[in-house]
Parts: sequence; structure tokens; C-alpha cells
Amino acid sequence: MSLDIEFHYDFGSPNTYFCHRLIPGIEERTGAKITYCPVLLGGIFKATNNRPPMEQFAEVKNKKEYQALEMKRFIARHQFSDYRFNPHFPVNTIHLMRGAVFASHQDYYTRYIEAMYQGMWEQGKNMADPEVIAETLREHGLPADDIVAAVQDPEIKQELIGSTSRSVERGAFGSPTFFVGDEMFFGKDRLLELEAEIVSQMR
Amino acid sequence: MSLDIEFHYDFGSPNTYFCHRLIPGIEERTGAKITYCPVLLGGIFKATNNRPPMEQFAEVKNKKEYQALEMKRFIARHQFSDYRFNPHFPVNTIHLMRGAVFASHQDYYTRYIEAMYQGMWEQGKNMADPEVIAETLREHGLPADDIVAAVQDPEIKQELIGSTSRSVERGAFGSPTFFVGDEMFFGKDRLLELEAEIVSQMR
Repeated sequence: MSLDIEFHYDFGSPNTYFCHRLIPGIEERTGAKITYCPVLLGGIFKATNNRPPMEQFAEVKNKKEYQALEMKRFIARHQFSDYRFNPHFPVNTIHLMRGAVFASHQDYYTRYIEAMYQGMWEQGKNMADPEVIAETLREHGLPADDIVAAVQDPEIKQELIGSTSRSVERGAFGSPTFFVGDEMFFGKDRLLELEAEIVSQMR
Repeated sequence: MSLDIEFHYDFGSPNTYFCHRLIPGIEERTGAKITYCPVLLGGIFKATNNRPPMEQFAEVKNKKEYQALEMKRFIARHQFSDYRFNPHFPVNTIHLMRGAVFASHQDYYTRYIEAMYQGMWEQGKNMADPEVIAETLREHGLPADDIVAAVQDPEIKQELIGSTSRSVERGAFGSPTFFVGDEMFFGKDRLLELEAEIVSQMR
């Protein structure tokens, strides 16, 4: 059974981190495999005239407090004990995401993803800094030099631009975004529906 | 067991209609009673500098289409076969909500709520029109003259202003908003969490 399920992610969004932690459970329960597609969230926002939720509702009384409460509840419900809000937020993720594009063609892609998510949302590192990225890669036994070099490769740059544009063309306006075939699901709060759709399409 | 659970609603929001249809199930499963508190959504938006979702994201590419898709999925999942988007939307609900305040002190309050929701979100009536409201009340055997007169009563007007202000003071920025004790839940997509909180607080 081959079902095309894509996770359009950018390491800069904490909600994609939560999804990353919950995806193994979805894969285990459904038997499906979810493909990680790197996109540049800043590029999606620009292309769709969207803004990060924290900016969007900065002017709305009570909303920010409620969004913080919802995140706290979500974290408590799923017991994300390693999660820590990144003190450098918002972090420019262009290097990380170009690195992800390069790594997606290597056999260490899943280790790359895990290393970057840990650095960003568990260890509170400044992951916009190429030095910090390189150091984190080395700590995880990943080929830092290859990856850092690839970040400047015009083909890699172009590939990230392309994947970001395609995400918008398919209907995305933010991240995390999932596609099960052509059915789109946005946000960490749609994982139950996502899983139900996977089960339904696998039948 | 006495637990204070409030549903802050305005007939003008389709999402409050969906909640209204799902509340009986929550009450049945939990044994709890949910109190309907009329508020003026326009007043909440004004006080919090918030806007209806359709306006908020009018400029964001893909978002409106996705919101429509989510609503379609929600309706399909819950099989709301009587629901029909009101062709007069957005409907000014000041008369309806003042009527709700008056009716909340009468023994026919639940029948009033049901009649107004049917007119608004099943029959597609122009519920901003006092004539249409009166006619709908009569169809449901409700005392139209009393209710229409009460809409002009300064005390009733003031009571709606007060309930709307209190809603904002407690943290609301829109509707549907629920309070279980002091725990707030916003939107039709939080009904599972709402139910879990009721169960938890009843223990």
C-alpha cells in the first residue's frame, strides 16, 4: 500500500517540533510512512501574505494569553518533558532548511532532523548561527563540513525555493502542514483528523 | 455536584450553532449542565480589537479556502444535515441577543434559543429583522410581543452590555467561548478538551 503523506516543516516553528514528536506514534498505529518535506516558513508567509500567529494577534486583547494557555495544555497533555521555548526565537532558519534539503538526499536525513529539532526546541541553541549548527552536527556524528558547504550550493538554494513554492501552490499558508494525497491538514491540532484520513485512505 | 460551566454565545456565529447542537451530547455523557450566557460578539470584537475570522484572513492566500474546507469536514464528521449557511450573513444580532437576555429569565429560555438557532442556521432567515424575529417566535409558540418589547428595555440593554464586558474581563476575545470554573476554551474545535475538563473537575 503506497500512500503519499507529506509533512511540510520548518525547524523554526515549535508546532512542527510537537508534530515531529507525535509522528512516530501516527506511523506506528497506521503503518504509514510520513515524508518530511523541508520548506521555508518565511517564504510561505511572504508568498501568502500571512504572518506568524504571535504577530497576527499582537493587537488582540486576551488572545495571546489564550494561545499561551493552549500551548501549555498541549504540552501537558502530551508530556513533552524535553521541550523548552527557544530563547532566540524567532530564529532565521534559512541555513537549517537548506541543510535539510541537502540531507534529504543522504542516508542520515532522519538523524539530521532529530539533531536540529533537539538543538532548537530542547537545548535552546541559537540555530541561526552557522557555528552553532556545525557544532550541533558534529555532536551528533554528522558530516558538518559537507552540510555547511551545501548550504551555499545554488542548486540546494533553488531546491528549497522550489519546495516552498510548491507547498503554497498545493494550498499551504503556514507550517506544520500535512498532505495525505491531496487532503491538506494545517497545525498541530489536526493530528487526530490527519490520522483518521490516513486510515481511511489506506483502506 | 455543582460545577459552573458557561457557554458564551451569539446566534450570529455558525460555530456557536455547531456547539449548540453538540452540547446535549456533552451534557448527557458527563451529567453536567451547561449554562447559556448571551453575549454580543460585535461588542467582544470591539473591546478586544478582534475581527471575525473571515475578515482577519481575507488577505491571506489559501487560508480562506482551508477554513472553508475545515468547516465542511466538521459538518460532515458530525452529520449536521439541517445546517445551512445563512444567506444574510453577517447578521446584526443585537435584537436576538437582547431577546436572549430577557428570555434567560423566563421558563421558555431553551425554546427561545432553539427557535433562534433554527431561524438563523437552518432556515436561512434574515434574523436582524424584528418582523422576522417576531414571526419566528410565534411559529414556536413563544410570546413575541413580550420579547419584542423587552428588546427596547434599558435594563435588558444594560444587562447584555454587562454580560459582554464580563466575558471579556474573564478572557474572551470571541465566541463560542466556554468556561469550566475558570478554565476557558475557545472555538468549536475544543469540545473534546472541554468535555475532558468537565469530567476532570467533576471528580
